[in-house]
Amino acid sequence: MIQATTLNWPNLIEFGAGKIKTLKDHLENSKRAFILVDPPIKPMVESLLNEISRTGVEFKISTEVIPEPPINEIKKFFKPVNEFAPDTVVGIGGGSAMDMAKIIAVLFDGKQSVEDVIGIGNVSNRDVKLITSSTTSGTGSEVTPIAVLTDTDAKLKKGIVSPFLVPDVAIIDPELSMTLPAPITAATGMDAMTHCIEAYTNKHAHPIIDNLAIEGIRLIASSLERACNNGNDLEARTALALGSLYGGMCLGPVNTAAVHALAYPLGGEFKISHGVANSVLLPFVMQFNYISSAKKYANVAKACGVKDTGDVEQMASLAVKKVREISNSCKIPSSIKELGIPENAITEMAKAAMKVTRLLDNNPREITLSDAGEIYRNAYDGVIK
Amino acid sequence: MIQATTLNWPNLIEFGAGKIKTLKDHLENSKRAFILVDPPIKPMVESLLNEISRTGVEFKISTEVIPEPPINEIKKFFKPVNEFAPDTVVGIGGGSAMDMAKIIAVLFDGKQSVEDVIGIGNVSNRDVKLITSSTTSGTGSEVTPIAVLTDTDAKLKKGIVSPFLVPDVAIIDPELSMTLPAPITAATGMDAMTHCIEAYTNKHAHPIIDNLAIEGIRLIASSLERACNNGNDLEARTALALGSLYGGMCLGPVNTAAVHALAYPLGGEFKISHGVANSVLLPFVMQFNYISSAKKYANVAKACGVKDTGDVEQMASLAVKKVREISNSCKIPSSIKELGIPENAITEMAKAAMKVTRLLDNNPREITLSDAGEIYRNAYDGVIK
Repeated sequence: MIQATTLNWPNLIEFGAGKIKTLKDHLENSKRAFILVDPPIKPMVESLLNEISRTGVEFKISTEVIPEPPINEIKKFFKPVNEFAPDTVVGIGGGSAMDMAKIIAVLFDGKQSVEDVIGIGNVSNRDVKLITSSTTSGTGSEVTPIAVLTDTDAKLKKGIVSPFLVPDVAIIDPELSMTLPAPITAATGMDAMTHCIEAYTNKHAHPIIDNLAIEGIRLIASSLERACNNGNDLEARTALALGSLYGGMCLGPVNTAAVHALAYPLGGEFKISHGVANSVLLPFVMQFNYISSAKKYANVAKACGVKDTGDVEQMASLAVKKVREISNSCKIPSSIKELGIPENAITEMAKAAMKVTRLLDNNPREITLSDAGEIYRNAYDGVIK
Repeated sequence: MIQATTLNWPNLIEFGAGKIKTLKDHLENSKRAFILVDPPIKPMVESLLNEISRTGVEFKISTEVIPEPPINEIKKFFKPVNEFAPDTVVGIGGGSAMDMAKIIAVLFDGKQSVEDVIGIGNVSNRDVKLITSSTTSGTGSEVTPIAVLTDTDAKLKKGIVSPFLVPDVAIIDPELSMTLPAPITAATGMDAMTHCIEAYTNKHAHPIIDNLAIEGIRLIASSLERACNNGNDLEARTALALGSLYGGMCLGPVNTAAVHALAYPLGGEFKISHGVANSVLLPFVMQFNYISSAKKYANVAKACGVKDTGDVEQMASLAVKKVREISNSCKIPSSIKELGIPENAITEMAKAAMKVTRLLDNNPREITLSDAGEIYRNAYDGVIK
């Protein structure tokens, strides 16, 4: 029996090459728009923004995007944005640009603080229109109710989850991702792959989301290496962008699991980018998980292009190897060791990961502290057994 | 290469058994709600509405739902609703209840007339919140930018298409469909099947929509007969409701094709319900179309449960037979003759159908006036060749 669920996505999703131009239509009724744009993207949208500003919209544009945004840095935006008094907030860029725009949109008026809203369901309102445009294919933030920031004092990444963070309009234009360097394409692409795999194999999986997730896996598996080898391959960039959009659409209703939980300490403590941390851990968490739902992992293998042997358990184990192969093919570090993290950090990282119960609860197989340590140790060596 | 597209769906879709209860949350910020509810559904939601009214929302409730709503009937609502001055309009019921609510929501303030907004993109605004709750599994109207009404003078069905008709919230609760009589379950279910098949095989098909459509076909094919045989089979009702939701999600971005175009004269002139008209015509339009995109029709066959023979053309032709079989299994009339329409009406019906160029343009195979006549004649006899 299909369980009840809530789908909370942007009312408008503009997908495909050239779609950034629709920003003009979506700002038609706006008078004052605060726009946060990733620095490398600004030159690509400059003439469009000039054209839109001639229609009478007043802009305040910032390129002060900080990766894995620290709480203290984001707070600096609230006063000047409040003085500007926008009716629309726009975030154009990768996950950090969009997450910052999402947080600014709900908090600039000063009625709530960052500390008030961390966690699930604590944002009380949003009074301005929110538009996101994703220029990397990975985060999915353009369609999610989630924004992640870094508590630098506690050396932890923290999440804000609220329906008010779901943008009104999401624009996904793969042309804006064509200059993304190969290592970032690879890391963000594997992040999107992780979203799809963790949603599809989730303890709280749902058929509506399964349908998006498995198609996302297929799209990313068939396009990531191509997009890394030739950034101008618009066909591959478009397939990757759609896979990433599907990954994002999974995150609200089902969300991620142990890979993301175990990746958090690598980001919070060692400043490893979210995508790389996920990529390195993904095969090792899959190796731990696959016996718990072999049929689903076998489908992951098939979606990744592994020829069906008819043996479900074998196919499930081949999923692990294939995902690692995809990760290798786009030159992502293959072990925690390569990331420069000392082996003796594992005990503390395992303890920190065990606190991310919100995501561990979604994992198809229960993970104990000692399991977490073993997964980290396997990932440290980087050898799939 | 994946083409650009726009996905315009409700920001919130509440799907599953018991979800009607979320209406309370979605009316939390409303002060005055006009609610149009299909008469057989009213007793099922009465205690919920009483409970909500105690939270301080003022209601004006009407059960004056008219099937295939005539323009003149809908106009009668505007003045009293305007006097009530709602901030929210809710439509609970089948396609007619929801379409009427959608039209009332955009027109009650009198700034535009029905005649102003017929066609594509003519609605200028919507100032009130719009909530739809579907209680049949067929129309998909709960998530579409479309409302259909009947021009009784011209004996024609006319459509209003606008992003302002996309509801803010769509609630699909299969428990509300459990008392739906078998013949209506059958007709609305085959309507949903038609949405999915016409979107999937559409000349303007899109992979995002294909993914929803093919899953919709699978769900409807596997549940419709069961839901007709036992209305209380909640599992079948839920699968059918999801198939219908997917069908609705296809209608904005891709829309329907020749089946709907040829069905319009049966509704406008002979008052045949939309679902029955589609069901009778579907196999005969498929029979005409399938050679134009055999691979897609072969996939339809597979999604309907036909065992793959490996021969694409054969599978495509089996899709026609299988869809007819499903339609027969739930006792839908199998010919135009059975509907009581005289054979000599075919010439005029074919001429009328040829005017629905908006939908005929989507058909995978071009249809001439003589083709339309032949399809009607085959459907008149009701024999698949």
